[in-house]
Amino acid sequence: MRDFSQDHRWLSINTATVRKSRGVELPLPEIIEACARRGIRAISPWRDQVAAAGLARVSQLVRSHGLELSGYCRGGMFPAVDTAGLQAARDDNRRAVDEAAELGAKCLVLVVGGLPGALQGKAAHKDIAHARAQVRDGIAELLEYAKNVGMPLAIEPLHPMYAADRACINTLEQALDVCEELDPARSGALGVALDVYHVWWDPKLQQQIARAGGERLLAFHVCDWLTPTADLLNDRGMMGDGVIDIPRIRGWVEAQGFAGYSEVEIFSTANWWQRPHDEVLDTCIARHRTVV
Amino acid sequence: MRDFSQDHRWLSINTATVRKSRGVELPLPEIIEACARRGIRAISPWRDQVAAAGLARVSQLVRSHGLELSGYCRGGMFPAVDTAGLQAARDDNRRAVDEAAELGAKCLVLVVGGLPGALQGKAAHKDIAHARAQVRDGIAELLEYAKNVGMPLAIEPLHPMYAADRACINTLEQALDVCEELDPARSGALGVALDVYHVWWDPKLQQQIARAGGERLLAFHVCDWLTPTADLLNDRGMMGDGVIDIPRIRGWVEAQGFAGYSEVEIFSTANWWQRPHDEVLDTCIARHRTVV
Repeated sequence: MRDFSQDHRWLSINTATVRKSRGVELPLPEIIEACARRGIRAISPWRDQVAAAGLARVSQLVRSHGLELSGYCRGGMFPAVDTAGLQAARDDNRRAVDEAAELGAKCLVLVVGGLPGALQGKAAHKDIAHARAQVRDGIAELLEYAKNVGMPLAIEPLHPMYAADRACINTLEQALDVCEELDPARSGALGVALDVYHVWWDPKLQQQIARAGGERLLAFHVCDWLTPTADLLNDRGMMGDGVIDIPRIRGWVEAQGFAGYSEVEIFSTANWWQRPHDEVLDTCIARHRTVV
Repeated sequence: MRDFSQDHRWLSINTATVRKSRGVELPLPEIIEACARRGIRAISPWRDQVAAAGLARVSQLVRSHGLELSGYCRGGMFPAVDTAGLQAARDDNRRAVDEAAELGAKCLVLVVGGLPGALQGKAAHKDIAHARAQVRDGIAELLEYAKNVGMPLAIEPLHPMYAADRACINTLEQALDVCEELDPARSGALGVALDVYHVWWDPKLQQQIARAGGERLLAFHVCDWLTPTADLLNDRGMMGDGVIDIPRIRGWVEAQGFAGYSEVEIFSTANWWQRPHDEVLDTCIARHRTVV
């Protein structure tokens, strides 16, 4: 297992972590500058942040600073109630693949979606098996496109508390079942993004990480699970402030040959988004060395 | 599958559902009277409610109304940091078994506990595998005691969002692994309490219900998953107000021979606990007939 205590060369910042500084939206170019100033070598930006700053400008900034992208957030949201909805998702996901390629991302992260309408508070139906079938079909179709572009797709299993509204792929085992069905050859075109927040509780985690193997482990995300957790979405904790044994999980992942970045992804309405982003980034660096 | 649309003979009320009426604590004897008045044939009371009213009095009330107990809530909370803590949990769980027997409960529900201290906001350690081993040992020991008393133990897998602080058994598969290890003969002394709120998201749910079989399915709890969910603990929805396909899950359970009560268990700080308990109970009866 790599020693992270001496430097932060394997730290990546998911830009949602500093989406706000002192409660105010922080533009992506400023985030990039602040990361580069600290010798942070990689980021993972969100599509809305890229769109706000302009894809060409972000691409130029990334290149001029020699930044890597540990991933691009995000594609997915496949389920829909009708053909038009499925088609819209397909078109949007292809654009996401193209943007990820333009930015040189290591993978496009897929948050696959749940019951159509649930995110808006009104699910169109309760048939999660049907949503899962649409997700499978959506990934299968996108995979063909992404292979041609050369952009790996990383399915992110989301915590079961998001099954209704954000992603109906909720365990690593389930994500790997999809990978095996759609890419049995382990070509590298399809794998998983493993976020400790979503999977730390899983009694089969170690076993399934071994099943994934290095070919399927495309991204590794860190933050922490707080007790109590005040909000289902935006109360992700800083590494070390919660109950997740991050080094243990990283050890399992690295034992499979994963040698990429540890990407910090924190959403925190009440805490970190209220602080100056400089403090947040400095804390990420410190915790990366001490508790990741 | 049984037809529930004509009456509510298979409705049980978990008494937490009407723990408060118009926001004010409602004593268990009043809950019992209100249920009996409506021809509700079963309840599942909580230990603190029984203690407040007195075990002998509750026992007498239950008998005089001819009520059944679909379960008794609850034993568990096995993990601890030292021998004294483990011993205290052991003693308390034996008392819970005795109380369940005195009340004639069908089973003692086990919420097994998580990381010691996490429920108080300060976990003593991050080793969930260790907590799980303590849970296994605790159940094994309690099972011997409960067998002598003739009280079945029902492990309740809790939603993964409670893994840190309430229960580190988080899937039906995991609960059944424990059952198989400790009671391979399927004696009826050890099984599971299946609460749709905790398991509805599980892609292996149908498969694992079939694995459980009738001998292991000791209790069936219903409520609903709301979108959005405002609070991790106390925002359980009324059946029909959320996204869970309850009849589908009930169908899987009954296909295994389960013929017991559907126990309504709702915790709802902002909604149902603010209403008059008469309204809540009438709504439970109506929804039991229409959406369960």
